[in-house]
Amino acid sequence: MSLTALALNCTLKTSDKSPSSTDHMLRLMLGDLAKFGVESAVIRVADYNIKPGVSSDEGPGDDWPEIRRRIMEADILVLGTPIWLGQPSSICKRVLERMDAFLGETDDQGRMPSYPRVALVAVVGNEDGAHHVSAELFQALNDVGFTIPASAVCYWVGEAMQAKDFKDLPQTPEAIVSTSAMAARNAVHLARFLKENQYPGG
Amino acid sequence: MSLTALALNCTLKTSDKSPSSTDHMLRLMLGDLAKFGVESAVIRVADYNIKPGVSSDEGPGDDWPEIRRRIMEADILVLGTPIWLGQPSSICKRVLERMDAFLGETDDQGRMPSYPRVALVAVVGNEDGAHHVSAELFQALNDVGFTIPASAVCYWVGEAMQAKDFKDLPQTPEAIVSTSAMAARNAVHLARFLKENQYPGG
Amino acid sequence: MSLTALALNCTLKTSDKSPSSTDHMLRLMLGDLAKFGVESAVIRVADYNIKPGVSSDEGPGDDWPEIRRRIMEADILVLGTPIWLGQPSSICKRVLERMDAFLGETDDQGRMPSYPRVALVAVVGNEDGAHHVSAELFQALNDVGFTIPASAVCYWVGEAMQAKDFKDLPQTPEAIVSTSAMAARNAVHLARFLKENQYPGG
Amino acid sequence: MSLTALALNCTLKTSDKSPSSTDHMLRLMLGDLAKFGVESAVIRVADYNIKPGVSSDEGPGDDWPEIRRRIMEADILVLGTPIWLGQPSSICKRVLERMDAFLGETDDQGRMPSYPRVALVAVVGNEDGAHHVSAELFQALNDVGFTIPASAVCYWVGEAMQAKDFKDLPQTPEAIVSTSAMAARNAVHLARFLKENQYPGG
Repeated sequence: MSLTALALNCTLKTSDKSPSSTDHMLRLMLGDLAKFGVESAVIRVADYNIKPGVSSDEGPGDDWPEIRRRIMEADILVLGTPIWLGQPSSICKRVLERMDAFLGETDDQGRMPSYPRVALVAVVGNEDGAHHVSAELFQALNDVGFTIPASAVCYWVGEAMQAKDFKDLPQTPEAIVSTSAMAARNAVHLARFLKENQYPGG
Repeated sequence: MSLTALALNCTLKTSDKSPSSTDHMLRLMLGDLAKFGVESAVIRVADYNIKPGVSSDEGPGDDWPEIRRRIMEADILVLGTPIWLGQPSSICKRVLERMDAFLGETDDQGRMPSYPRVALVAVVGNEDGAHHVSAELFQALNDVGFTIPASAVCYWVGEAMQAKDFKDLPQTPEAIVSTSAMAARNAVHLARFLKENQYPGG
Repeated sequence: MSLTALALNCTLKTSDKSPSSTDHMLRLMLGDLAKFGVESAVIRVADYNIKPGVSSDEGPGDDWPEIRRRIMEADILVLGTPIWLGQPSSICKRVLERMDAFLGETDDQGRMPSYPRVALVAVVGNEDGAHHVSAELFQALNDVGFTIPASAVCYWVGEAMQAKDFKDLPQTPEAIVSTSAMAARNAVHLARFLKENQYPGG
Repeated sequence: MSLTALALNCTLKTSDKSPSSTDHMLRLMLGDLAKFGVESAVIRVADYNIKPGVSSDEGPGDDWPEIRRRIMEADILVLGTPIWLGQPSSICKRVLERMDAFLGETDDQGRMPSYPRVALVAVVGNEDGAHHVSAELFQALNDVGFTIPASAVCYWVGEAMQAKDFKDLPQTPEAIVSTSAMAARNAVHLARFLKENQYPGG
């Protein structure tokens, strides 16, 4: 069975600017997913106009319907965000807000359109904040219907009050490499099952 | 295939005191699990002496090894906590801290002993705090190896700054009833799969 | 001594749309501040183009420099946000991100430009999330230099999984009225002192 | 005017065990407070029997009344906690829960017994979690009546997924030294004012 993944990079920078540490982490994770035959793409959300709101279409000029369509086409969502002030980026929050609409779009079995997708989380910062970011993302993603496999987050942050960037590390630390591999393995394990065995609803 | 569930009630009150709203919520959820043949038990954690620490056995007088054993015997963990100051109870935090030990108890495939268990969360308060509590619990439970099915939390809180108790409601609100049913259904769906198909590790 | 307050309404709706419950709460709090002679204004942030980034000026078309200037002119900042998925709005997160720049704009005594301002927080939602939102706002506001007086948040949320709006309540609950009054009283007490007695730095 | 500070060390270890990194951070901060003539003491909370509950006295064997009395005698509270799973320790949560009682112990002006005290926060971990811990502590401390001065937290954590201890660093990083000094300076500035100018209540 072939699976697909969509990664959303919620850096504050558009793709014409300097490289993104979040992108660096997402490439690592998508590489690990590829080992299981998962085809993937990355969307740099800052390149799009995601209007404020909590519906699936906020009207003319809103790019969310396109991103929503691509989430629906994928089996695995990898939500990646940088950390600012210990918290997820405003662009990541915007993405979650727009998925709030899933709560009102259930089918006649009470299942949200996001069912039966699996979510992974990628978090990168100069220092501190990864656990909190994953907490907020797991909760919001679960609230809007995603399934969270065991060990679903891969993150890197540097020492407190320092300014090192993940993308500038001479090499990726071994702990990050093995965490990413385990997250990918677990996501694929669940996604294969759920793709053929949708939640029954009721 | 027959499944079992263990519910941990992290109320601050021992079981000889007045009824617990958290218990009331757990009974609802375990009732929904029972519809799928899941046998379950509730442990009132305040009745036990769970010593502070982050190992699986903190020595003489520590009741954690017994609770840990029962977690390991179950397929589904339902972690229930009241809300104080918008946050999980100190007893719930103690339980999570003790599960921190799983991080160092991986097998030769890198899998924690908690793999491949499924977790649900139950949260009850007079007012406000359920989303944050579920965020902290999802993150901590996932960090220590649990899988989170879609829509994995059932909660009740009253209006802001009021003092109503869940256990005293004349009847359980319909939204809570259907949320509990969906959480149970989703947990069973994943737990059946994972019981026969452990994460592969690597 | 005369004080001024600036309220930032971080609702997702522009001001030409339907009334905002966050605005309703901010009006209550500004009314309480006015009893102490505090002059105030409300900015509907969604009406402005606040570019993503963490500097104080993100270039052409960025409206943040204007809002930043008005924050600097006020003695008290009232940060108001709705709750979505139990978390602050993406617009509120954007505002906090832009204030991250204060960390790099210290004077020769190590004081951020936000010193010696006092912050209050207003939170409104259909159900649940106020404590978490105030936690995130207190932490981010404190990180970027604001002082938090005792009892600095006023909030309203309805019962779990319901859809009532604060602006539609027949009358403001007494607990909210007294909480807003206390928050205003405490903010004025500290702001008067800090206006004439800036933190010494060092 | 002479001020006093009380530090609560919420490490999971009793004081007869190995040295505590949280203690190391508290000593730094109390040293900075001492430069302003602040006399202080540290309580290792794990040495006491703080019973679960949300009243100010949970009956025979409860050591909280003694700690509560000492909080009331101090002008500045420094709440120090290690990080486990990205969150405050269960002992820190227990302390906050017990202070929940302040909400019901207001005087005839609506002021909690904790008014007009100032709080600082100290957080130490191997890796990640400090911002979230300070968010939870600021919110809970503010809810129960404490005032939070600008830049009120001092923390240290190491690089992601590493196991370095703060107490074992060859020397305290300069950023931590200056952060602790600023926190102390700001706390003293507010505490001197509030000691002679209690919040008016109403």
